[in-house]
Amino acid sequence: MTTLSFREKIKGVGGDASYEAKARVLREQLEAKIPASLRLPPTILEDPPLDVTRIPETCCLLTPEELAITELDATTVCQKIAAGELTAVETVAAFGRRAAIAHQLTACLVDFFLDEGIKQAQQLDEYFRKEGKVIGPLHGLPISVKSQFPIKGTIGCGGFLVKMETSTEDCDMISILRSLGAVFYVKTDQPQSLMHLESQSVYGRVLNPHNTNLTPGGSSGGESALVAMKGSCMGLGGDGGGSIRCPAAHCGIYGIRPSSRTTPTAGFLFYQNGSDGTFASLGPMCRSARDMWLFLDAVLGSNPANRDPDVLPVPLRMPDLAQKKLRVGIMMHDGVVIPHPPTVRALQLAKAKLEASSEVEVVDYIPYDHNRGYSIIRELYFEDGGATIRRLLKEGGEDMHPLTEWVISPPYVKDHDAAQVWKLREKRDIYRREYSDHWWSQNVDVVLCPPFQGTASRHDTAKYWGYTAIWNLLDYPGAVFPTGLFADPSIDIYQEPLRPMSAADERNISLYDAAVFTGAPVSLQTISRRFNDALVLAAQDVIERIIKS
Amino acid sequence: MTTLSFREKIKGVGGDASYEAKARVLREQLEAKIPASLRLPPTILEDPPLDVTRIPETCCLLTPEELAITELDATTVCQKIAAGELTAVETVAAFGRRAAIAHQLTACLVDFFLDEGIKQAQQLDEYFRKEGKVIGPLHGLPISVKSQFPIKGTIGCGGFLVKMETSTEDCDMISILRSLGAVFYVKTDQPQSLMHLESQSVYGRVLNPHNTNLTPGGSSGGESALVAMKGSCMGLGGDGGGSIRCPAAHCGIYGIRPSSRTTPTAGFLFYQNGSDGTFASLGPMCRSARDMWLFLDAVLGSNPANRDPDVLPVPLRMPDLAQKKLRVGIMMHDGVVIPHPPTVRALQLAKAKLEASSEVEVVDYIPYDHNRGYSIIRELYFEDGGATIRRLLKEGGEDMHPLTEWVISPPYVKDHDAAQVWKLREKRDIYRREYSDHWWSQNVDVVLCPPFQGTASRHDTAKYWGYTAIWNLLDYPGAVFPTGLFADPSIDIYQEPLRPMSAADERNISLYDAAVFTGAPVSLQTISRRFNDALVLAAQDVIERIIKS
Repeated sequence: MTTLSFREKIKGVGGDASYEAKARVLREQLEAKIPASLRLPPTILEDPPLDVTRIPETCCLLTPEELAITELDATTVCQKIAAGELTAVETVAAFGRRAAIAHQLTACLVDFFLDEGIKQAQQLDEYFRKEGKVIGPLHGLPISVKSQFPIKGTIGCGGFLVKMETSTEDCDMISILRSLGAVFYVKTDQPQSLMHLESQSVYGRVLNPHNTNLTPGGSSGGESALVAMKGSCMGLGGDGGGSIRCPAAHCGIYGIRPSSRTTPTAGFLFYQNGSDGTFASLGPMCRSARDMWLFLDAVLGSNPANRDPDVLPVPLRMPDLAQKKLRVGIMMHDGVVIPHPPTVRALQLAKAKLEASSEVEVVDYIPYDHNRGYSIIRELYFEDGGATIRRLLKEGGEDMHPLTEWVISPPYVKDHDAAQVWKLREKRDIYRREYSDHWWSQNVDVVLCPPFQGTASRHDTAKYWGYTAIWNLLDYPGAVFPTGLFADPSIDIYQEPLRPMSAADERNISLYDAAVFTGAPVSLQTISRRFNDALVLAAQDVIERIIKS
Repeated sequence: MTTLSFREKIKGVGGDASYEAKARVLREQLEAKIPASLRLPPTILEDPPLDVTRIPETCCLLTPEELAITELDATTVCQKIAAGELTAVETVAAFGRRAAIAHQLTACLVDFFLDEGIKQAQQLDEYFRKEGKVIGPLHGLPISVKSQFPIKGTIGCGGFLVKMETSTEDCDMISILRSLGAVFYVKTDQPQSLMHLESQSVYGRVLNPHNTNLTPGGSSGGESALVAMKGSCMGLGGDGGGSIRCPAAHCGIYGIRPSSRTTPTAGFLFYQNGSDGTFASLGPMCRSARDMWLFLDAVLGSNPANRDPDVLPVPLRMPDLAQKKLRVGIMMHDGVVIPHPPTVRALQLAKAKLEASSEVEVVDYIPYDHNRGYSIIRELYFEDGGATIRRLLKEGGEDMHPLTEWVISPPYVKDHDAAQVWKLREKRDIYRREYSDHWWSQNVDVVLCPPFQGTASRHDTAKYWGYTAIWNLLDYPGAVFPTGLFADPSIDIYQEPLRPMSAADERNISLYDAAVFTGAPVSLQTISRRFNDALVLAAQDVIERIIKS
């Protein structure tokens, strides 16, 4: 492995001369938006440490008050603003200033519009002064937003340079969040095609703040890096194959992919509109478990189905776990790829702690033909054989990223006619039904499993999505949480002689090098049946508490 | 119009020699299942009156007790059985015997297995005697079932001779109804391809019992004829373009198409599995408004989403209409086709009565580009350009029905590749969103509108589905109810000089001949937004009561 300089690491996707000219303009425009007063000194930027998470506190660009505000989670922010202990203006200013610093260290942003955010916050503060109450449950909460979700007047894109736009209106989710009192100040980066567990675009390559040799994950990798840097306490991500859970897990934050179509998706930028074999869903990425609830409860409470006829008005009801003992199935691996040692260590710890607890019952969860399910969703993603992607790259003179090439390549991906589309979707439905029967046969309430086949991976190597995408195919909601453990080369060593379970497993073993992953957060994922989103959150709270006790 | 003999009217779809041989066996098998003791005398069958609804009462084949039982609605049947005033055995025997008579007059059945029904009923009676309580909310209720929904051991098909089967297991809905206490005794006919508002299959052509020159509608036309003949008080139908509402309206009974995927569909017979651009949904066809509630409340109460991961667990909550005045939008026509005079007369009566009532507010509902929506769903039905249908007909040597030919013909229907499928589905999504915005702009709770462009049509003429299919595209739940009016040639005359609104309208005008429709029931349809199924039922109760007051 060659060692890249920091400048080389954050380099964006290239292209032909016309592409490069446009890309330069975009990058310069973004660069110009970062205030001079928040620029890190070249001494830091020339050769930052692999772990950049502490730099905001030590760089002397933020006041103690700003540092204190950016330590808060979203729930506390909302509470303090509602109590008059904090203004919306000082809140967004603090997060915005920290975001500018985070961006210089991780290349996480595509747009920065703190002035707009402050204006919005002023209006909210004014309302609060006049009315003596908040405008909604998210009054004054700064929310960072992934590029693909349009905020009026800001930069966004659907995965390619040619899809770049300055949005002329808010998408539904933004409009709802705005009406609930949220404040917007930055847009964050995502990968070419939106279909990598990695985040490199025309703007640059986003780095994992815990270890910049690693990816923050994708596709909501700008969000995960920013939230981990505390440049945001609440990020809006989207997940069609792991794009919330993977980056959240890689950066040691929280995130949930809600059951699809329960949160509003209308208006988001994509390049295969109408491709409805599987749906992405939007959800929060944040720094406390309760913030996921805050977000979902507020958004679903706004009755998004009234606005969007595609939204499913399935109520979010917190289950009463006192009624019966929670049954947790532990899935050590998916039968296809064994996770890397740090993740296995976390699972073993979790198992031991949960088994020792009288609060839950633990069983071994047997995965049901995940390889088949993974094949189906890989095929569903690009039913046109990737033709649309090829066309958009060509139109923009944009180089094809190696992970884009991989994701649209045979054998999974091929062209389909209408009857073949139906056949594929029937396969999906059959698998879902068989899986549902299997789930009941396992007699579990939730499954605790890896969110990925290891911690954050090295750049350009994430080629197995099975640990997240299988749940997208099934549309089982899933959340991730940090175990509090970090990859440690002194103990995270393969213990037994390795017999690969599959070609993907063989590749995964070859990717492991204990030293490379040093400092990467180790996270786990909680899953339940479709529409049991509240159960996922409630159960994960219990599991996390027991594991960390 | 040539006058067909009764024998000619009930003739089934033809085919080549091999098809005819198989068809003959099927027809003879069915014939043999009708007990000799229930055969109508040739004097009746040679030339029955156009209105055959009274024959069961006058043919002397049923006892006064049997006639009394078959007058009951499903709610009363369930109540009486639960109170010990009626046994399950005598109930199914009465309906079964009347069904045998109904079949001879309307060709409504494809299978008759009263012995099985009686056995099931005996077990239920036994349970009731032993336990002193019912097994479920539908304990002892006989339910007639459309051919396409498998009941173990009975005949069923997915629209073509080659898709005919003796089912080896219950589909989900049947299994659920069985667990709720329902009893099965007959399967009913449906059209070739399942995609006509008319019901002619290999078995025969189903006739409208109010006027056998007219169709009972389709595709659940066997059900509507049977229920109108009181050979069933609860029928199970399916609706993907009007297939519950149209036949229910044509035969003067009640029916609701629930929001799709709220009732279980898994296991039903079809020939385009995986074609998921629009979904059929299953619902009740019955003789009282409250029976629709009985059915939906019982089925949804069984939590079908636990069994079928495709079912949406959206709760069915009866709205409190005392809270605010119900706003009823009246849609006199859809902007494409003006309904025939009997339907206009019913709408005018409804409007006058509702406007005179202090209980509701009435507004004129403006349809939103229904022609565009109708074009989209017509294209969605057969994204393969009808190739699957052509193949199945060829495989079976089955003649193509003129309505099958019509339904798969250009310009609506064409072949698609994957990208074209996405494009079409995007068009659908855009239309749905625009329609949703339009709906709110109209400020109505429900819309009262025609269920068809007239009363029941003459055989083989139903070529405009706009009044029902538009709501399938939007997935807005819809119910129909009989107004109590019947087509009357002495008053149902076009009043004004006719200026056709469209080619379809011109054709509809040409189809009207007051004398032909004599005695056809006139029904209306109530619609609300997606997932507001309970509101549809509650509002329709109010509307029906006011209209009939």
